[in-house]
Amino acid sequence: MGSIVDELEAILAPGQVDTGEVPLRRYAVDQAPVIDFQLPLAVVFPESVADVQSVVKACADSGVAIVPRGAGTGVSGGAHATANCIILSLERMDRILALSPDDETAVVEPGVVNAVLNEAAAEHGLMYAPDPASFRSSTIGGNVATNAGGLRCAKYGVTRDSVLALDVVLADGSLIHTGHQTFKGVAGYDLTGLFVGSEGTLGIVVGITVRLKYLPREVHTVAAFYPDFRLAAAGVLAVGRARVQPAIMELLDGGTLAQLDDIHGSDLTARGKSLLLVQTDGFGAAAEAEVVRRVLRDGGATVTTEASAEAERLVELRRHSRGTEVDDEYRVGEDVAVPRSRLVDYVAALEAMAAGQQVHLKVVAHAGDGNLHPTFWIDRQGPDVEPGAMDRLQVALDESITAALAMGGTITGEHGIGQYKLRWLGQEQPEAVRELQRRIKDLFDPAGVLNPGKAI
Amino acid sequence: MGSIVDELEAILAPGQVDTGEVPLRRYAVDQAPVIDFQLPLAVVFPESVADVQSVVKACADSGVAIVPRGAGTGVSGGAHATANCIILSLERMDRILALSPDDETAVVEPGVVNAVLNEAAAEHGLMYAPDPASFRSSTIGGNVATNAGGLRCAKYGVTRDSVLALDVVLADGSLIHTGHQTFKGVAGYDLTGLFVGSEGTLGIVVGITVRLKYLPREVHTVAAFYPDFRLAAAGVLAVGRARVQPAIMELLDGGTLAQLDDIHGSDLTARGKSLLLVQTDGFGAAAEAEVVRRVLRDGGATVTTEASAEAERLVELRRHSRGTEVDDEYRVGEDVAVPRSRLVDYVAALEAMAAGQQVHLKVVAHAGDGNLHPTFWIDRQGPDVEPGAMDRLQVALDESITAALAMGGTITGEHGIGQYKLRWLGQEQPEAVRELQRRIKDLFDPAGVLNPGKAI
Repeated sequence: MGSIVDELEAILAPGQVDTGEVPLRRYAVDQAPVIDFQLPLAVVFPESVADVQSVVKACADSGVAIVPRGAGTGVSGGAHATANCIILSLERMDRILALSPDDETAVVEPGVVNAVLNEAAAEHGLMYAPDPASFRSSTIGGNVATNAGGLRCAKYGVTRDSVLALDVVLADGSLIHTGHQTFKGVAGYDLTGLFVGSEGTLGIVVGITVRLKYLPREVHTVAAFYPDFRLAAAGVLAVGRARVQPAIMELLDGGTLAQLDDIHGSDLTARGKSLLLVQTDGFGAAAEAEVVRRVLRDGGATVTTEASAEAERLVELRRHSRGTEVDDEYRVGEDVAVPRSRLVDYVAALEAMAAGQQVHLKVVAHAGDGNLHPTFWIDRQGPDVEPGAMDRLQVALDESITAALAMGGTITGEHGIGQYKLRWLGQEQPEAVRELQRRIKDLFDPAGVLNPGKAI
Repeated sequence: MGSIVDELEAILAPGQVDTGEVPLRRYAVDQAPVIDFQLPLAVVFPESVADVQSVVKACADSGVAIVPRGAGTGVSGGAHATANCIILSLERMDRILALSPDDETAVVEPGVVNAVLNEAAAEHGLMYAPDPASFRSSTIGGNVATNAGGLRCAKYGVTRDSVLALDVVLADGSLIHTGHQTFKGVAGYDLTGLFVGSEGTLGIVVGITVRLKYLPREVHTVAAFYPDFRLAAAGVLAVGRARVQPAIMELLDGGTLAQLDDIHGSDLTARGKSLLLVQTDGFGAAAEAEVVRRVLRDGGATVTTEASAEAERLVELRRHSRGTEVDDEYRVGEDVAVPRSRLVDYVAALEAMAAGQQVHLKVVAHAGDGNLHPTFWIDRQGPDVEPGAMDRLQVALDESITAALAMGGTITGEHGIGQYKLRWLGQEQPEAVRELQRRIKDLFDPAGVLNPGKAI
């Protein structure tokens, strides 16, 4: 019997199986820190559902692991190669199969880029709501794998809330369809919801039916600068108490403002030590923005009075506030969420941790959801770091997780567990809950070939 | 060894185990047609999580089935007694354990009545969004069991969208906590979503953390009367094309209007042959209602110009349009959903089926979701029905299901499969999908004691 690579090359067409050193290295990792670098046996590019089924069958027969991958923009290592694996890149399955304006639904292949679907929907006054920061490059399949969030979630929900039905190739190569083409449907167990967020460990998603929402005709954006990060966090609660539901409510700390100034030549740091960006949309956008301005001013903010064009530019900057940075072992971005009432406390705790461990900290937050992305990092001088700095970074990271959990939070609001966050999962979920998930995994993938060592 | 009743009486306090003939009969069924009447061995009223754990353990040890029950308002037979079972009524576990206005969450026991939670939330300007027609009596636990919908779903989502976390007693009596207290959280598989809608077949839900939404300060209601049901259905699409998202969009046919007139002495039938009720809410409610009025008038409707007070009264009537009727073998309410673009076609098909089979038909629809509740019925004269009528009723029911599925619909939008709809589930879900669900059921409940013969 030949190798799995030979077998896959025999099954697929020329150009669908790549074993070149450069692509193997490139596809070996996503954007998460790498803790166990492995080179895949091959990168495989299916172009149809049948291709995926054939590849899964061949790998299952050979006991070769399959690591599915969208655009590789994940930040938890869900698409990192593992030992004896192929990377199954779904990027060529990128067709929008249907878009029904009256049904307000679309059916897409997993490799469709989020922004591409949104452009197609916009022609009909519709949008696909979940908008992770990576929306210009990340795929719907990848978004489904991680149950991705984004900026608009507080109002419009996360990926799971927009997914109606899935086509999934199971570990034995068979194809099933879950869910319903209608907005509502409660026939049987929610298999669709089970696959969403399962990071390719239960099956390979090869088709996605999504619900679209109405593209708001009116959008108002308010930029509120604060002298202090905690005051800005308090502003989030003030907007909530006014019972206004913004589409976007982003919180940026001083470190993030400084970084944006560096990259874009803006003057944000001159205007405040923290920024709260609030976007309202829909028919009530103007009235809602007026309430938002009032309550934020009352809470000590300097609120722009000009037209919202400048504030909108700030939202665009915020969307790119990750910049081109990629996390590594010296710089780790977190994704905790806490109940909204604990935002102020948690922000204070983060600042104390960074000071205590003498590491750098910057924080952005989808504050409407209580979902924070603190990034801790340490300086490097050439290849070296200061002695002890690495340990202090790890202590700060661990402290930030422990504090979030103590406040009733979670270790991942929207990025997923992947590979990198497994070390903390046991702190959030007791053994009984983890064992139940292992048994579900065994049920779907008894041989353990689907993205092993991830998610649970 | 004594009987399970003796055992349960020994475990629980006096008054928690009822074996009286009248309660046994009363708790033997919910509001669905009964196809296999069974008397339970006892009705058991746990008052704590520990009570539920003890009862589950005792029943599991004795191989006695457990049928969990909220208020018994289900219409699919999910709470019908089965052979050798106890009814586990969760109605006494009715405390709101926490309600955090800043977190916009509440933690409730399963027996809390939907309307009671809404009253408590309203004091803080908040609401629990899912509003099944039974909201005045149905419980949050029952709503979770069926993933209940309601009138406000098109805008605010179904039960699953409002549930953040669950406490669940498993089939071995152990207790787990799933989900997260935060709005977002993607750690591990979505066990919470798996339990929601599983009709008590995977575990007994004993605690529910829900997300609350903002109670809209402004509500506008538009009542549009049409000369024809299909024109009214087309009005639903017209509102969608105007990209206005109403909170409520209810469609009532002539039969429903006549029934409301009968019960309430209203004059609806004099005003049109069909009624579309549209409610907009939030800061943009007035502007949205103005657009709705315009597009509905353009589509041939007579739209009330008066203040929305009268229209609001109509929404209240609609909420009670099931009246006090309980389905039985002569009168069956359906719960299909179709993609929105097929609403007009489906309504036409229903009218043709009723005419063809000479059975009565009335239809109400949560039209924003494409979720229709057609009711077919036949006349009785005393205990007798016309020869052949029963068969024709069954043919009409089967046709309505087949037509909905052929249009890409589902056999249940929000009521659940329960016991009554199992006969049609195979038409919607192929064997592979059903087998996967059976295996999940086996994983959670290997002895098959949790509400056997329901949901899948």
